[in-house]
Amino acid sequence: MSNMRKISDINGYVEGNSKWPDFDKKICEEGNVVFTIPKSENIYDAPIFFNPMMNLNRDLSILFTKNYSEKINRKLRIFEPLAGIGIRAMRMLKEIPESVEEIVISDYNTITNSVSNYNKEKLNFTNNLHIFNRETRSLTLDLAENKYKYDYIDLDPFGSPSPYIDFMWPVLNSKALISVTATDMTALCGVYPMACFRKYGGYPINNQHNHETAIRILLGMVVRSAGRHEKGITPIFSISVDHYAKIFFKIENGRGRANKSMEQIGFSFTCDNCHEIYYEKIDGEIPKCCGELQKAGPLWIGKLFDKDWCERGLKSLETMKLPSEKRIAKQLLEGVNEEDLKGFFQISKLCKKLKISQPSFTDLFSKIDEEGFKVIRSQFKDQVIRTNISGRKLVKILKELAEK
Amino acid sequence: MSNMRKISDINGYVEGNSKWPDFDKKICEEGNVVFTIPKSENIYDAPIFFNPMMNLNRDLSILFTKNYSEKINRKLRIFEPLAGIGIRAMRMLKEIPESVEEIVISDYNTITNSVSNYNKEKLNFTNNLHIFNRETRSLTLDLAENKYKYDYIDLDPFGSPSPYIDFMWPVLNSKALISVTATDMTALCGVYPMACFRKYGGYPINNQHNHETAIRILLGMVVRSAGRHEKGITPIFSISVDHYAKIFFKIENGRGRANKSMEQIGFSFTCDNCHEIYYEKIDGEIPKCCGELQKAGPLWIGKLFDKDWCERGLKSLETMKLPSEKRIAKQLLEGVNEEDLKGFFQISKLCKKLKISQPSFTDLFSKIDEEGFKVIRSQFKDQVIRTNISGRKLVKILKELAEK
Repeated sequence: MSNMRKISDINGYVEGNSKWPDFDKKICEEGNVVFTIPKSENIYDAPIFFNPMMNLNRDLSILFTKNYSEKINRKLRIFEPLAGIGIRAMRMLKEIPESVEEIVISDYNTITNSVSNYNKEKLNFTNNLHIFNRETRSLTLDLAENKYKYDYIDLDPFGSPSPYIDFMWPVLNSKALISVTATDMTALCGVYPMACFRKYGGYPINNQHNHETAIRILLGMVVRSAGRHEKGITPIFSISVDHYAKIFFKIENGRGRANKSMEQIGFSFTCDNCHEIYYEKIDGEIPKCCGELQKAGPLWIGKLFDKDWCERGLKSLETMKLPSEKRIAKQLLEGVNEEDLKGFFQISKLCKKLKISQPSFTDLFSKIDEEGFKVIRSQFKDQVIRTNISGRKLVKILKELAEK
Repeated sequence: MSNMRKISDINGYVEGNSKWPDFDKKICEEGNVVFTIPKSENIYDAPIFFNPMMNLNRDLSILFTKNYSEKINRKLRIFEPLAGIGIRAMRMLKEIPESVEEIVISDYNTITNSVSNYNKEKLNFTNNLHIFNRETRSLTLDLAENKYKYDYIDLDPFGSPSPYIDFMWPVLNSKALISVTATDMTALCGVYPMACFRKYGGYPINNQHNHETAIRILLGMVVRSAGRHEKGITPIFSISVDHYAKIFFKIENGRGRANKSMEQIGFSFTCDNCHEIYYEKIDGEIPKCCGELQKAGPLWIGKLFDKDWCERGLKSLETMKLPSEKRIAKQLLEGVNEEDLKGFFQISKLCKKLKISQPSFTDLFSKIDEEGFKVIRSQFKDQVIRTNISGRKLVKILKELAEK
C-alpha cells in the first residue's frame, strides 16, 4: 500500500536550512562520523544530550542492522524515536550505507532538532534522514496511519522504554528487528523492586543473577506487549553493560507465534544455598532444592541469544572497525555458548556468601576444566562465569581451592 | 491549556447532513431514546452492529456517569472509541443531559458512521455529539496531541480491550473514570488459557471461581498498563454477565499511586479439596491448605467494588428507570457486601465435586444463617454464593443437608 502523505507533510517534520543554535561549537568524532555539538562542561549540563560512553550501544545497532540487511538482502527502513541528536542514525548512513534505505529520527527538543539538522546538512544526508520534532507516541501512530512501516526500530529512551513499547507495533513491518534499551538499572536489578514491577510487570531480584534477570524482565515486558498485539518475538542478542541493558529481537505476526513466545514467560527460582537457578513456566511446578528459593518474575525464561546471529556478528566485526568491537566480541561469544553454558554464577558474591576467600579465575577455570566442564567469563556482570557445571559442584571446587 | 485544533478540524470528523445508507429502516427504542437502524434478519447479519442485549452494559455506563458527575459537581467530557452506532452516547445525552458536556464517539465503519450521524441529527445532538471515522488508536493519540482530555472513557470493543487500553492514558483527565468491557470470556474464564495469557498477561483458571477470576485478570491487565504510565487505579464496580465482563475504575496520577495499585497484583490459589480461595501478593508466600492448590494470575487481588459508589448507585436506581435496573441492583448489593462476604462458592460444582445431591438454596441459606454467618447469591455466576463462612464449614453443611 502506498503512503497516504509525503513524509515531509507529516506534522512536526523539521525542514532544512535551520540555524545553528546560540552556543559555542565542539567538534566530535565517533566511528566514521565527524559532527558538531554545543560546547559544555559535562554531558549532563549540556543543552543537548549526547553521551559518548554509549558508543557500544550504537555500535551494536550498526552491527545488527548490517547483518539483518545482509540476511534479507535489501536496504532497511529505520525508525529511531527519542533519537537525541541522531548520531546513531548518522553513523549508520555513513558506515553502512549499503544497508540503509532511509532513517526517521525524532526528538521533542527544538535545540536538539537544530543540532541534528545542522549535522544532517553538513554530512549531506538530505534525502535519507528525516528529523521530527514531535511527541514520540503521536508521531509513531501518525506514521502508522499514513502507512509508513519500518524494518528496524531502535528504542533507546532516557530511563525506561515501558511507556513507549506498546505504541511501536503498528509501525513495524512483519519480521522486523527491534532493539530496546533500558537505563533504569536500579529498578531492573532489584534495588527498587516496586519501581521495576510497576514499569515492567516483573518482580526483580537483587542477587548474583540480577543483571541477567534484568534482561529477562525487560524481555518479559516486551513479550507481553507483543502478545497483546498478536506478535511473537525471538531474542537475537542481549547485553547488560555500562549501566544499561539492551536487547535485540525479531518479531513475527500471528496468535500462534505470540502464544509460543508467551509460553516462555515464567519465573526464575534461585536456591539460597547452592545458588542453582531454575526456570519454570507460568503454570509450572515450583522446583525443590537444598535451600530456600528466591523467586523473580514473571520474566522471559527462554534463550537470550540466537547462535547464528551471534556467529554472523563475530564474523562481521572482523571487517567493521567498530569503536567497541572487543567488548562486543566477548558478549557475542557468550551468545554463541549460551545453549551449552546455562550455569551463571557471580564468584565474588558466592565466595562471600560461603565465607571463603576467592580463588583466582585462572585457578578456578583450570579446575573446572580438569573436572571436564566448560567455563567462560560472562559479560553480564563483573566476576561472573557462565558454565555447564552444577551449582553444587562449583561450591565444592570453590571450597577446595579456598582450603589450599 | 486550550485545544490546538477545533474538534471538527481533527482528521476523520464526520460532518453533518450525511445520507441514510441504502437499507430499509427499523425503528428501535432503548431507555429514553428512539432511533433508526438498518433492517436485518438478526444482529450478526446486519450491516451495522447493534446488540439490544447489551442494554445492561449501557445502563451501567449511564448510572456511573451520572454518579461521577454528581460527585465532582460538573458536567463530564466523554470519549467512547469503538462506539458502533453510538446508542450509549445518545442515551446519555437524552437521559442524563445534566451530567454530560460533550461526547466523542468513533467507529471505523462508514455505514455505521452514517447511521449514527442520521440518528444524531434526528435527535438534535448536533452540538454535543462528535462522530469520527478513524482507527481508534490514531484518533486517541491525535485527540491527546491536540490537548483534548476526557473525564470518562467507555472502552467496549468487540472481543478483548487489550490492544487498546495502552493508548487511552494520554487522553484522560486526572481522576478520570474508565469502564472497560471484554467479551472474550472463553479466554478470560480459562477455556483457552494461552489466549488469556497472551491477551491479558494473566493465566486463568476454569473452576468455580472462573468468572470472578476473569474480572481479576482483566483488572490485572489494566493495572499493569496504568503502571507503565504512572497511574494507579481504584475499582468502583465489576460485573460478569451475559457473556461479557465489565469493570469501572477511577484513575489517579503518580508513581506512588501506581505502586499502590501494583501491590494488589498477585496470584489466587484455590484448594482442590475444601475450595477455599487464597490471594497472595507477587512476592508473597505460597499458602498451605488441605488439598492441592490451583494457581491463577498474575491478577488483581484487591477489592472489586467501592462500597460508597455501590450504595450511591443503588440510591440513583430508584429514580432512573433503567431497563436492567433489577439485575444491576443485585450486583450493586453484592458490591456493598463485598468486604464482609469474601467466600465465593459455586454450589452446583461444589456438590458435583463432593458427589452429593444439591440442596435448595432456601435450605442452604437458612442453615448458614443458623450457624451465624451471612450469605447472598452472587451475580458473578449462576449457582454462586458470596458468604463469610469458610470453605470447610460450608462443605460440612452441604454434606449434612445431603444426608437428610
